[in-house]
Amino acid sequence: MKPGAASEARATFRPDGSVEHTPAVELGRDKPLRLASGATLGPFTVAYQTYGTLNEARSNAILLCHALTGDQYAAGIHPVTGRPGWWDEIIGPGRPFDTDRYFILCTNVLGGCMGTTGPADNSPATGKPYDMSFPLITIGDMVEAQARLLDHLGIDQLLAVVGGSMGAMQALEWAHRFPERVFASVPIAGAARHTAQNIAFHEVGRQAIMSDPNWHAGNYRVHDTKPSQGLAVARMAAHITYLSDEALHRKFGRGLQDREIPTYGFEADFQVESYLRHQGRSFVERFDANSYLYITRAMDYFDIAAEHDGQLAAAFVDTPVRFCIVSFTSDWLFPTAESRAIVHALNANAANVSFVEIDTDKGHDSFLLDVPEFHAILSSFLNSAAEQHGLDGP
Amino acid sequence: MKPGAASEARATFRPDGSVEHTPAVELGRDKPLRLASGATLGPFTVAYQTYGTLNEARSNAILLCHALTGDQYAAGIHPVTGRPGWWDEIIGPGRPFDTDRYFILCTNVLGGCMGTTGPADNSPATGKPYDMSFPLITIGDMVEAQARLLDHLGIDQLLAVVGGSMGAMQALEWAHRFPERVFASVPIAGAARHTAQNIAFHEVGRQAIMSDPNWHAGNYRVHDTKPSQGLAVARMAAHITYLSDEALHRKFGRGLQDREIPTYGFEADFQVESYLRHQGRSFVERFDANSYLYITRAMDYFDIAAEHDGQLAAAFVDTPVRFCIVSFTSDWLFPTAESRAIVHALNANAANVSFVEIDTDKGHDSFLLDVPEFHAILSSFLNSAAEQHGLDGP
Repeated sequence: MKPGAASEARATFRPDGSVEHTPAVELGRDKPLRLASGATLGPFTVAYQTYGTLNEARSNAILLCHALTGDQYAAGIHPVTGRPGWWDEIIGPGRPFDTDRYFILCTNVLGGCMGTTGPADNSPATGKPYDMSFPLITIGDMVEAQARLLDHLGIDQLLAVVGGSMGAMQALEWAHRFPERVFASVPIAGAARHTAQNIAFHEVGRQAIMSDPNWHAGNYRVHDTKPSQGLAVARMAAHITYLSDEALHRKFGRGLQDREIPTYGFEADFQVESYLRHQGRSFVERFDANSYLYITRAMDYFDIAAEHDGQLAAAFVDTPVRFCIVSFTSDWLFPTAESRAIVHALNANAANVSFVEIDTDKGHDSFLLDVPEFHAILSSFLNSAAEQHGLDGP
Repeated sequence: MKPGAASEARATFRPDGSVEHTPAVELGRDKPLRLASGATLGPFTVAYQTYGTLNEARSNAILLCHALTGDQYAAGIHPVTGRPGWWDEIIGPGRPFDTDRYFILCTNVLGGCMGTTGPADNSPATGKPYDMSFPLITIGDMVEAQARLLDHLGIDQLLAVVGGSMGAMQALEWAHRFPERVFASVPIAGAARHTAQNIAFHEVGRQAIMSDPNWHAGNYRVHDTKPSQGLAVARMAAHITYLSDEALHRKFGRGLQDREIPTYGFEADFQVESYLRHQGRSFVERFDANSYLYITRAMDYFDIAAEHDGQLAAAFVDTPVRFCIVSFTSDWLFPTAESRAIVHALNANAANVSFVEIDTDKGHDSFLLDVPEFHAILSSFLNSAAEQHGLDGP
């Protein structure tokens, strides 16, 4: 069967000027979202993509949660970049996210810039872009907005919620906030809190954006410009943290870019410089600077234990959720110790939890890369969860 | 006895407008410095500080080499910051750098901004600031300039050359380039090359500076401005790499700044944000942005093995130098593996080498911090080198 049809479609502009429409629903007109900050938001739009078909029992839905700079285009060709979606390789018939068996749903997060309401959108109150008048949001707020979409689609319980990095935060927050609506949760390369070092790196990115004179205190749309330089620097700094030293070394070493001897100048002499500059440049074409500010802030505020007097275990008392926690050995941004803290908290509640630390030198971004052992574990955990949930075999 | 007196003094302005004079000598008027890039530089000035007294035999000189943002004010009160010099705690009578016994010398590096010739200085050819017409320099060029100062001071051989981080690169390059002029070399928290990750972090800092509109392609002096925002962001990004995650956590955790509950805004809610912003702000008051570009670049080019067909061992064949290599367990910027590579290359030459990895969670900056085990090792190695070199006991 088809889930509740989208009540509107949100336009996304391709680089050639043509338009892609993503399903999107307006929510919260009657009942605005009450945010963690105390502010309210409504109406708001959630844009999403789906892959596969929702079964009659509405029991085969898997929610994928994207990372900081991801969006709802998890599979297929991304309408803006023209490149495959961030989990394209593992979504499809016979793949870990088997579209013959599961109904895969992916939303753009609240605060995002791919169709879900964020700072670039017009405020219904003023008819002008929210920009910095957009309320601060949290990971919990993102999850609340996703829950509203599930209500709209008539999905009471997810078979699983899965995500890496900020997506892992959402997967964990789903289990924390709505334990009865999540059969299984798979937080990958994640943490139950942002560390001081994580916050520090985000703060550098925000300062780079906010010190770009084209930022105009967030009102760059009125000035018909963009803080592209600042956003590019933010992306470059962040990008280094997504890779391991080993991965950078294997990819680039100290190799020179298109030359045999150094220029002794400030051109991108080394391949790694040229690569980083490219990462910065291409990012600003697809991402909104104010969205970057709001979403990094949401991650910084994330600290599940803080809501329970510092006791993470208290957040998961009697949880019925089945967990699969995944970390990667070379991830220094969200190191295994952070995943282990989650596992300890769940073990203290005798929860149903699997924990796998995968040996790879690809760094934090491993969850987006070709790491066969990771894909095999994902596949078998989902398969087992589906069986326990009473789904027919693949 | 007093070493060759300074032929001039270089003025440094204190924040209150008063002036401090640091000894400085003009060198290279007859014989310009031939740089690695092929360019020549001359005349040039080297500014320095000394502590203790050169003995009759001129055999008790220890050269301290500063890190990227350090300068010649290793001890005493820094004239610009008003704070103690970077190794103030370990320089003095009875301390590891015992001024009753050794003659301690510290120069501002070539390209620097505390009196030694750098991009902020006037070019003798044009009478205007070099800015981006300053030639690219390397760690080897810095060492050559220091050697010229030793010639001027009448010091044929150093008892030791000691430095951390970029200072370690210089200590290693001294042993590589002038093995007969160095009795002992102590590279601390260093490496024989800059890695791809190291280069990447530097490139982010440079891009932050160069994308600041006040940079004006390096000619900000003409425009009577400074790229302070860009330099502050560069400093913030770099500063994170100097500390370990553990150190940041111990110092700040997720603590809030002067408040009990988060503001849900973009103020410096977390203590670590406030700390980083302060680091950025105070740095721009004492450091020149173009110097930052040139010195980071010099570090990026550093790769001793590259001059020997990639064989680091070939750089130290039959070296007479006594080495003490020091690394710190929590240093992820110059990790122990980099120091170990130097040790292996020296072992392959049956060189006289001690290697100590010190267990501390203070990160790369450990060499500047109160780490008693490190200070004890420094003290005993220098003491032993002094004895072998025929100096009287302390």
